[in-house]
Amino acid sequence: METRKPMLSITRRVRFAASHRLHNPELSDEENARIFGRCNNPNGHGHNYVLEVTVGGEPDPQTGMIMDLGKLKDFLYETVVVEVDHKHLNADVEFLRGTIPTAEVIVSRIWDLIERKLPAGKLLEVKLYETENNIATRTSSR
Amino acid sequence: METRKPMLSITRRVRFAASHRLHNPELSDEENARIFGRCNNPNGHGHNYVLEVTVGGEPDPQTGMIMDLGKLKDFLYETVVVEVDHKHLNADVEFLRGTIPTAEVIVSRIWDLIERKLPAGKLLEVKLYETENNIATRTSSR
Amino acid sequence: METRKPMLSITRRVRFAASHRLHNPELSDEENARIFGRCNNPNGHGHNYVLEVTVGGEPDPQTGMIMDLGKLKDFLYETVVVEVDHKHLNADVEFLRGTIPTAEVIVSRIWDLIERKLPAGKLLEVKLYETENNIATRTSSR
Amino acid sequence: METRKPMLSITRRVRFAASHRLHNPELSDEENARIFGRCNNPNGHGHNYVLEVTVGGEPDPQTGMIMDLGKLKDFLYETVVVEVDHKHLNADVEFLRGTIPTAEVIVSRIWDLIERKLPAGKLLEVKLYETENNIATRTSSR
Amino acid sequence: METRKPMLSITRRVRFAASHRLHNPELSDEENARIFGRCNNPNGHGHNYVLEVTVGGEPDPQTGMIMDLGKLKDFLYETVVVEVDHKHLNADVEFLRGTIPTAEVIVSRIWDLIERKLPAGKLLEVKLYETENNIATRTSSR
Amino acid sequence: METRKPMLSITRRVRFAASHRLHNPELSDEENARIFGRCNNPNGHGHNYVLEVTVGGEPDPQTGMIMDLGKLKDFLYETVVVEVDHKHLNADVEFLRGTIPTAEVIVSRIWDLIERKLPAGKLLEVKLYETENNIATRTSSR
Repeated sequence: METRKPMLSITRRVRFAASHRLHNPELSDEENARIFGRCNNPNGHGHNYVLEVTVGGEPDPQTGMIMDLGKLKDFLYETVVVEVDHKHLNADVEFLRGTIPTAEVIVSRIWDLIERKLPAGKLLEVKLYETENNIATRTSSR
Repeated sequence: METRKPMLSITRRVRFAASHRLHNPELSDEENARIFGRCNNPNGHGHNYVLEVTVGGEPDPQTGMIMDLGKLKDFLYETVVVEVDHKHLNADVEFLRGTIPTAEVIVSRIWDLIERKLPAGKLLEVKLYETENNIATRTSSR
Repeated sequence: METRKPMLSITRRVRFAASHRLHNPELSDEENARIFGRCNNPNGHGHNYVLEVTVGGEPDPQTGMIMDLGKLKDFLYETVVVEVDHKHLNADVEFLRGTIPTAEVIVSRIWDLIERKLPAGKLLEVKLYETENNIATRTSSR
Repeated sequence: METRKPMLSITRRVRFAASHRLHNPELSDEENARIFGRCNNPNGHGHNYVLEVTVGGEPDPQTGMIMDLGKLKDFLYETVVVEVDHKHLNADVEFLRGTIPTAEVIVSRIWDLIERKLPAGKLLEVKLYETENNIATRTSSR
Repeated sequence: METRKPMLSITRRVRFAASHRLHNPELSDEENARIFGRCNNPNGHGHNYVLEVTVGGEPDPQTGMIMDLGKLKDFLYETVVVEVDHKHLNADVEFLRGTIPTAEVIVSRIWDLIERKLPAGKLLEVKLYETENNIATRTSSR
Repeated sequence: METRKPMLSITRRVRFAASHRLHNPELSDEENARIFGRCNNPNGHGHNYVLEVTVGGEPDPQTGMIMDLGKLKDFLYETVVVEVDHKHLNADVEFLRGTIPTAEVIVSRIWDLIERKLPAGKLLEVKLYETENNIATRTSSR
């Protein structure tokens, strides 16, 4: 018989404004232009990114909290937002050094950056809105 | 060979305005202040909560519906919204009596409240936005 | 030992404005009125639909992309939006012919329409907002 | 010397889902197609309209209210929403009979419909969102 | 000949979560219940308020700014948000003492609170969203 | 006796993603850092800008339109969006050459750019959202 164990999580949304350029230095300018189109503009362009981070667990009976949402917010500001807000993602951000900062690459690196700092198994999902229409998500496989 | 069975669901969003206070009466005032910060304000504070409820199933061939979204809305109003809208969650709400009404506790209690009134296995997810930045989710494990 | 394989996906959101009528021609007018209520209005009514399509995979190391979000957008416009935007879903849309176009039926047909045109296993989720309060979702079972 | 009299107002937002067709019966089909493009589709299309109505005045000292926002909501439902929600604006709506129901025509007719039922000078603005991108507004000249 | 002088302004949006109760102590309980309905609940209820403040002027040629939007944000936090966020508007807020804290009363008091601290004539509008559907606005008369 | 002439307008919303840097080359690096803070980051940062343009007038009796909203959209794309979307506002945009591209400067330049191409007196307002919290508006004086 299948039993359904309820799964509980909290999600915190934070924002940052950044610029980037999609460009692969190993390819020719023509290939870059063909692959990345207007996202390859040499001077870059930018977005108001929205980041949603979801952590799972059971509420502590003494606090009613899986994890303090205020602390999760502070953690995300200190670990992620301070690194990327009002920055150029290609030039200014250590954890994106050498990457092509597409939404899926950024979300994957943010996962790597924060997962190791959270208790094992806590991190369930990292979601990044580049615009309201373009979204990338990394999810823990279950 | 793995077969992928498509899974279909509908989600209804409802809203309520309520106040609450995060406070554990078994702890000292100092501990409450330290743990809950400004959420421990004795006179409480409030939110425009958004509740999203997802139920799964197959559409009835005669109606094209998993469940009538209008009926799901009515069910949620009668079962949940009428209990919490324009209320103080600590003082006025039977199904939250004795809890610390964090987003994760509220979402968990709403799950318990509505799941027993829905056909078995129908309820897939209950999601509660305390603000657009603070969200709690309870999902059926699969 | 359980291993967690990270799962990565991108989501593209597109919009269309359409009208529809919920009506089952095999039922009497009275039954239709009883079942579908104001959605059964003979002249129909309409919505600004929002469609979100999620495809999974690993980023191509040369581009940092699972799939070009601009190409995914173009694909969705050519395959779905052009068929339904500024149309009457019951009368004008080939892939909904003979259906009762509820949100769950539309989302299911859009899944069928696009899944066969994407590489196998790529499509993870199709989500349709009929309004911000009424949503239907089809997900690949995992 | 110029004196600045503060001006106070309240705004209520309501929603309705409707279909319409932009078509002028006095013009040829070719002219209609040229002028209205895909909005001329014979079977129509639809929108989730958002209507915002603003009324000005001074708060009643006994209630702190310019006008009860709940009563304003009820008034708008009874006067406007019940007439247009889940309707075809060309075929089903008395106060739009014989018009080409563009956003600017609808907003103008809604102004006429509600202004006569409000105390003189109270109505300051009626705003209609056809989509989040297409908006029409009628304002009282001051 | 009429000359049109362009008018330029900037708007900053801030948020706060608060509870309140609509109640006039000079009226009987019956009258309060009749006038304020569920907003008269003795234990109060709450909202996620959104406040938008607009100041006009000409950009300083050296900075391109009418006023630094970051400084305007800081000013609004120190002057308004710190007073009302996570508070009970009736019990905890000095500048609302003795009022019935409807949206129109709150917006009017916030105007009074901030206008005197801004250069004369700068403040053009204060707008308060109690919910996305209930809004109050105070505008400088021109 | 005061007569109130109704005023009618339509508004079109368009979007663009761009990067910029707030920097005055006539000032020292220290002064730039002090005045513009993190907006002075040498490599720039970026935003998803939202632009709303409002034009007034009376509906043409033959079309029900003040101006075709689709044509207004096309006009804004050709005149504004193509110039700024996926661009660096300081380096790539002719109509912002030599400016400090704050929201108020950009909105003012967009006004100048489009007003001369519209019939006299038509343009009523240009509004620019740098983020959902930072907004600049230029309005025709009345």
